Amino acid sequence: MNILLIHGPNLHLLGRRQPEIYGSQTLADIDQHLMEVATQRHVTLKTFQSNHEGEIVTIIGQHIDWADGILINPAAYTHTSVAIRDALATIGLPVIELHLSNVHGRESFRHHSYIAPIATGTIAGFGAFSYDLAIEAMIQHLNITQT
Amino acid sequence: MNILLIHGPNLHLLGRRQPEIYGSQTLADIDQHLMEVATQRHVTLKTFQSNHEGEIVTIIGQHIDWADGILINPAAYTHTSVAIRDALATIGLPVIELHLSNVHGRESFRHHSYIAPIATGTIAGFGAFSYDLAIEAMIQHLNITQT
Amino acid sequence: MNILLIHGPNLHLLGRRQPEIYGSQTLADIDQHLMEVATQRHVTLKTFQSNHEGEIVTIIGQHIDWADGILINPAAYTHTSVAIRDALATIGLPVIELHLSNVHGRESFRHHSYIAPIATGTIAGFGAFSYDLAIEAMIQHLNITQT
Amino acid sequence: MNILLIHGPNLHLLGRRQPEIYGSQTLADIDQHLMEVATQRHVTLKTFQSNHEGEIVTIIGQHIDWADGILINPAAYTHTSVAIRDALATIGLPVIELHLSNVHGRESFRHHSYIAPIATGTIAGFGAFSYDLAIEAMIQHLNITQT
Amino acid sequence: MNILLIHGPNLHLLGRRQPEIYGSQTLADIDQHLMEVATQRHVTLKTFQSNHEGEIVTIIGQHIDWADGILINPAAYTHTSVAIRDALATIGLPVIELHLSNVHGRESFRHHSYIAPIATGTIAGFGAFSYDLAIEAMIQHLNITQT
Amino acid sequence: MNILLIHGPNLHLLGRRQPEIYGSQTLADIDQHLMEVATQRHVTLKTFQSNHEGEIVTIIGQHIDWADGILINPAAYTHTSVAIRDALATIGLPVIELHLSNVHGRESFRHHSYIAPIATGTIAGFGAFSYDLAIEAMIQHLNITQT
Amino acid sequence: MNILLIHGPNLHLLGRRQPEIYGSQTLADIDQHLMEVATQRHVTLKTFQSNHEGEIVTIIGQHIDWADGILINPAAYTHTSVAIRDALATIGLPVIELHLSNVHGRESFRHHSYIAPIATGTIAGFGAFSYDLAIEAMIQHLNITQT
Amino acid sequence: MNILLIHGPNLHLLGRRQPEIYGSQTLADIDQHLMEVATQRHVTLKTFQSNHEGEIVTIIGQHIDWADGILINPAAYTHTSVAIRDALATIGLPVIELHLSNVHGRESFRHHSYIAPIATGTIAGFGAFSYDLAIEAMIQHLNITQT
Amino acid sequence: MNILLIHGPNLHLLGRRQPEIYGSQTLADIDQHLMEVATQRHVTLKTFQSNHEGEIVTIIGQHIDWADGILINPAAYTHTSVAIRDALATIGLPVIELHLSNVHGRESFRHHSYIAPIATGTIAGFGAFSYDLAIEAMIQHLNITQT
Amino acid sequence: MNILLIHGPNLHLLGRRQPEIYGSQTLADIDQHLMEVATQRHVTLKTFQSNHEGEIVTIIGQHIDWADGILINPAAYTHTSVAIRDALATIGLPVIELHLSNVHGRESFRHHSYIAPIATGTIAGFGAFSYDLAIEAMIQHLNITQT
Amino acid sequence: MNILLIHGPNLHLLGRRQPEIYGSQTLADIDQHLMEVATQRHVTLKTFQSNHEGEIVTIIGQHIDWADGILINPAAYTHTSVAIRDALATIGLPVIELHLSNVHGRESFRHHSYIAPIATGTIAGFGAFSYDLAIEAMIQHLNITQT
Amino acid sequence: MNILLIHGPNLHLLGRRQPEIYGSQTLADIDQHLMEVATQRHVTLKTFQSNHEGEIVTIIGQHIDWADGILINPAAYTHTSVAIRDALATIGLPVIELHLSNVHGRESFRHHSYIAPIATGTIAGFGAFSYDLAIEAMIQHLNITQT
Repeated sequence: MNILLIHGPNLHLLGRRQPEIYGSQTLADIDQHLMEVATQRHVTLKTFQSNHEGEIVTIIGQHIDWADGILINPAAYTHTSVAIRDALATIGLPVIELHLSNVHGRESFRHHSYIAPIATGTIAGFGAFSYDLAIEAMIQHLNITQT
Repeated sequence: MNILLIHGPNLHLLGRRQPEIYGSQTLADIDQHLMEVATQRHVTLKTFQSNHEGEIVTIIGQHIDWADGILINPAAYTHTSVAIRDALATIGLPVIELHLSNVHGRESFRHHSYIAPIATGTIAGFGAFSYDLAIEAMIQHLNITQT
Repeated sequence: MNILLIHGPNLHLLGRRQPEIYGSQTLADIDQHLMEVATQRHVTLKTFQSNHEGEIVTIIGQHIDWADGILINPAAYTHTSVAIRDALATIGLPVIELHLSNVHGRESFRHHSYIAPIATGTIAGFGAFSYDLAIEAMIQHLNITQT
Repeated sequence: MNILLIHGPNLHLLGRRQPEIYGSQTLADIDQHLMEVATQRHVTLKTFQSNHEGEIVTIIGQHIDWADGILINPAAYTHTSVAIRDALATIGLPVIELHLSNVHGRESFRHHSYIAPIATGTIAGFGAFSYDLAIEAMIQHLNITQT
Repeated sequence: MNILLIHGPNLHLLGRRQPEIYGSQTLADIDQHLMEVATQRHVTLKTFQSNHEGEIVTIIGQHIDWADGILINPAAYTHTSVAIRDALATIGLPVIELHLSNVHGRESFRHHSYIAPIATGTIAGFGAFSYDLAIEAMIQHLNITQT
Repeated sequence: MNILLIHGPNLHLLGRRQPEIYGSQTLADIDQHLMEVATQRHVTLKTFQSNHEGEIVTIIGQHIDWADGILINPAAYTHTSVAIRDALATIGLPVIELHLSNVHGRESFRHHSYIAPIATGTIAGFGAFSYDLAIEAMIQHLNITQT
Repeated sequence: MNILLIHGPNLHLLGRRQPEIYGSQTLADIDQHLMEVATQRHVTLKTFQSNHEGEIVTIIGQHIDWADGILINPAAYTHTSVAIRDALATIGLPVIELHLSNVHGRESFRHHSYIAPIATGTIAGFGAFSYDLAIEAMIQHLNITQT
Repeated sequence: MNILLIHGPNLHLLGRRQPEIYGSQTLADIDQHLMEVATQRHVTLKTFQSNHEGEIVTIIGQHIDWADGILINPAAYTHTSVAIRDALATIGLPVIELHLSNVHGRESFRHHSYIAPIATGTIAGFGAFSYDLAIEAMIQHLNITQT
Repeated sequence: MNILLIHGPNLHLLGRRQPEIYGSQTLADIDQHLMEVATQRHVTLKTFQSNHEGEIVTIIGQHIDWADGILINPAAYTHTSVAIRDALATIGLPVIELHLSNVHGRESFRHHSYIAPIATGTIAGFGAFSYDLAIEAMIQHLNITQT
Repeated sequence: MNILLIHGPNLHLLGRRQPEIYGSQTLADIDQHLMEVATQRHVTLKTFQSNHEGEIVTIIGQHIDWADGILINPAAYTHTSVAIRDALATIGLPVIELHLSNVHGRESFRHHSYIAPIATGTIAGFGAFSYDLAIEAMIQHLNITQT
Repeated sequence: MNILLIHGPNLHLLGRRQPEIYGSQTLADIDQHLMEVATQRHVTLKTFQSNHEGEIVTIIGQHIDWADGILINPAAYTHTSVAIRDALATIGLPVIELHLSNVHGRESFRHHSYIAPIATGTIAGFGAFSYDLAIEAMIQHLNITQT
Repeated sequence: MNILLIHGPNLHLLGRRQPEIYGSQTLADIDQHLMEVATQRHVTLKTFQSNHEGEIVTIIGQHIDWADGILINPAAYTHTSVAIRDALATIGLPVIELHLSNVHGRESFRHHSYIAPIATGTIAGFGAFSYDLAIEAMIQHLNITQT
């Protein structure tokens, strides 16, 4: 079971500012933790971070034959990228959209997602633990739909 | 650790229709499974189902001193109930909003939630497994914020 | 042929006020007349009135195995209840939405119905005779679709 | 009792396409059936079909002294014609708007009607039987208001 | 100086209904009065009434070489006809839009005009005297712009 | 002079949370104070609290012959209940809408009231003293209109 | 017959700029011409110009007993002044709104008028001749309604 | 305790028109009555009326050191004046917005208030008695917040 | 292969005005050229021009059995005609919508098309050459879908 | 080089309240500083403050022949005054709109400016230094455009 | 005659998925076919594909002196990229926007194009043949405008 | 004092087209001039230009520890990039948004900025001199806030 995890723009700065809010974990810390979870759960996990909408589109396309499912924290591109939506819709794999913060409690332009309508499900608001939940959700989803 | 789980309107009909879509699990099956999960995870779980907006408001108020956190699948009331939002905001406990289906992929009036802006986080689209994820998320959230 | 007829909020006050406008018929008068019509047309009719959105949801669910079709005058809940819409959609029976008054000639918030998109058809503006028309329409609809 | 029935644009094609959906009845079949109904119910019925907004306006005006009530299936002009609305409002007779299909379950631009606010009542969604219901509704309405 | 006057839909019914509101003048009475005014003011006036949007478009095009200016009471087509707007814009003559009633004091859909943005000026609310004013305004306008 | 006072959803929790904001008065304290005011002002006051939209509709209907005027703090139902509006409009008595907080200074969805357009007047923002003002306003209103 | 004519903001600058567009007439020229027209037509005309919304409100109130009708070119206040609308509505006299330019052909915020819905009629787009037309329209209107 | 009372535009005309609707009280009558109320309640009251938005802004600023609270009936400026809102917000005193009529039952543009979001509370719909209620509300508010 | 080409309102005036913009080609010139193209490409072409919405509806219906595909330049009716849309949808043939000008660069009301959502494809902005492209596109489309 | 500087409503209160936010500078302090800047830069500066929309309109018109450019801090009138926009547009001089605060970070109604579309440029958010920047910008603009 | 052809995001995946819908042609197949067409028609064609908005902006700028016209299938960037619009507008060459699918028949957010208003023309809905049509349209356009 | 200056998409083309409008200065000319200004004012300036939204996000993050303030001309990304807004908000430094042209006088989609609400201030409309003003504004801002 191969899972691709994509971190969107500005997530490379996690842990660099305001540790009292976002925690002191860097993105590397999170990725390392998730790799251990993946090993425990016997799934193969690949992670990418990119600030480029186009690069995220490219990465998605490159894993068309490798991945069984995609986890994506689209960050700011959640609200503005039709291109990432189209990439995900084109390859036709299960997608889980996740967010660290509860986007529905922030500015109104963050209440709309271009990704969610074509996703299997969404998870938001649990900090770095949103990633743990998303991995569990994807494993469960693939177990059900692949059998 | 006391967790209150509220099922909103029409969820009592789960398993009565279209098992090929919603599965053959009834709400009683789901509740029984979640009770076992709660026991394993050493938390106390109480579950309610109601078709009445006012009854859900009353239940929330009655658990003001008992609950440490609230899981709610508001179903149709997600989109229309300011009263449930106010009840949750008044008692001031952590709240997780969850849905069986991916509401963002359905009619546009289901894209707006009165509950989400005052919730800790949201989970949607994973069928009955959304409840499992929500329990894990609440335990994690309470562990962090209560220590 | 079993038909469930649901009267929504405030309809219990029919005939109590402004007889020059709404006529002097009470809801009991209307129900008695419709029972006679049902007998004549060889259908079984059950009628309910409720001011509670949740109770209407419950009644719909309780007749999932009994009813062949549902007539509903949702009154004020026409414009605000996703829960009743979901109840009707879940049980999957033919539904006719009816109104005493012509809702399209009143305040603009009465022009939108949550029920109509999932109904078979709608009838509005003919006073108590709207119920007679709805019974005829349902009988005709069931005769066609059940044969 | 003189009733004018107007069929709007494209209704002359009924029965020419997709009989599995719209039935195999042509507009001539429907008109013939309604004429028989009229005879039985002792009312005089005249029917017209036109694809021209202007012609419908003209027909309405020509029957200012003849008709006691008007039944109209405005079809596409329901959503775009202020001229037909004004014609109906000018002559000041009872009007019933009817539709074969349930317009509220179709594209959102079909949810708005220029005719409905100035009509006595509306009937939609019962196929050709909508016409039968409309004749009954008009007879009932005229019986009440003319006595 | 040649002036074309176009009366839109339903204006042929003037004087047939509600003389206490609209006066007892018929459209023929108005046209006769305006012909006398035209004679007095030494202008040639041609008048048309049509209920057909397409016919109005055709009439406008037919007078491309004859008319010096156009007076139009577009009635209901004011709010719905891009075709009449395009016809008037294409022939490029001065246009005055006039109305018997004060459209701004009626339903909100009557507040928008497709014609006004491409007109020289507008006059509304003075009953049949709106036509007298419009003739004076056109003569004045042509006197200024043609010298 | 009989006055009915209705407290809407969540008001039963007054004084249970955040006394520094809402004061330490419970709803029972407020009701007791208002009863004393009523005695002093020689009016009969009955008070109800309900979390149920339907129950509020029922209470209003039950007092159709008893009450001379109605005071209502609709709380969350202010913004979502057409049913309560219809109940109040049906019985046709003077209504005063009141709020503890200044709803216009809160979330934008609280700026719209279904009740206010059919009320005699509105009072908002003065905490529990809003009730005292509403009683005075109703007595004054009834004194003027009943003489 | 006493007619009050009010010129709104910036009209005192007429003739100071861009004579090729607005003509070389100053507001004094226009007023002098209109005074001559008034004398010819045996009506008494008083004219005011003000840049102050409040002053226009005051002037209207001061003529509550003097004027038989009011002509107003509200200029920019057309689109922003509820106070002038209320002043005109309060004194309850016939009002004609006029404009030099065709406001419907300019920026979209100029398409809405607070004044027009409470006016008798409107005239726009004929330059200074709009005033001449408005005087004629008012005389005609007063002749009809005062007899 | 010093209270400033500001009457907005057109209120100087009270009692001049339609006494059957607004009563025969003039603004001077109301002010005199309120002065007596103020004496009884041991507060100092100053009242102003102005038709000028700018003058109201100036009056507010001039009482920055004198007033303990402000009562304002902004009339038409309720819906259009950011300047008055800013003046009130700048001086930072308690503000009560009041209206004679129930603005929520009138035209939709009267449903929005620029003043209400920065006010302590609002009172509307009780005729001249709205002023009496506002004085009581302000005294109560100042008693609570100043102790 | 039979292709029906429909020219909408005002297109009969092509070449009559502003040849420097629209070219000096009349509609007859264009039709003659397209007939030659059709001959070369071995397809049968019939062309119609009408200013009447209703006539266009009628023409479409009349070719239900003759045409293999329809080219339509709906001109102004693009933005206002549900009736033409319904006619095209009813007969169920491939449709290409074309325009001489680039409608997306003109007034905002021209950006919406009722026809495009039910068309196979759209072509706009190439002057009379839009027709040549549309013929090629239809031939290609029919070749693919008919084999 | 003559520059007119206009301060809008409420700016006369600068320094009277909240010095920790707005600084302790009064408007007189700012004007004195700007006069010194003007002397240094060899330009003539005249400054005005007014709370009256109409007075600002008048001032603008009075400087039609004196000023080479206008600096305006329209404050609240930014969002509501078409009259000031029209005054500035009429005299046709370069205009710079400036604000002390960053209006785009405040309430949404402050995001729209009637002035900005007809201005040369805008400066906002730099406190009193916004005036210094605006003077520099105007000098630069006039140097370029006047040579 | 030099023509630049730009393929937007996700088009590199053509032919990788759902050949029954999009055909089995890859982008390389299409480009090869278009190169042959270009040779036949004696034009020089350069093609690029990019998933990066910024790269497309750069490519456009790099061909400022080389290209005579640009064909662009902006795919998802059609609906979100002001930057590509600005790049095309800056270099000032003829642009044709094309799409494989009929975007007007898909989700409503695909109905708006940032590119179309600054394009010469648009072509959509003909699959890969849209490219053939676009080349013909550009050649025709350049032939006319360059002579 | 370290200042980062970011030029958004298409600004690399400055001076390549339409020198009569944008001047003949290239971006290199502007940068060289600003470097000289920086030297004179004793600040360190680094400048970047990028057409890539993602690259701008990356550059901002890379200067988290170096920069004291950021000047950004986001060009087209002003209106579409949440990612750049988030990058700027994350690093938490003073930001000045500037534009060459007056964006408020252009297309309506340019009136909204995602950047402005999180900026210190904005400057627009002064051509290349906007950069000079922004540097002065930043120096002033840093001098005040850093002491």
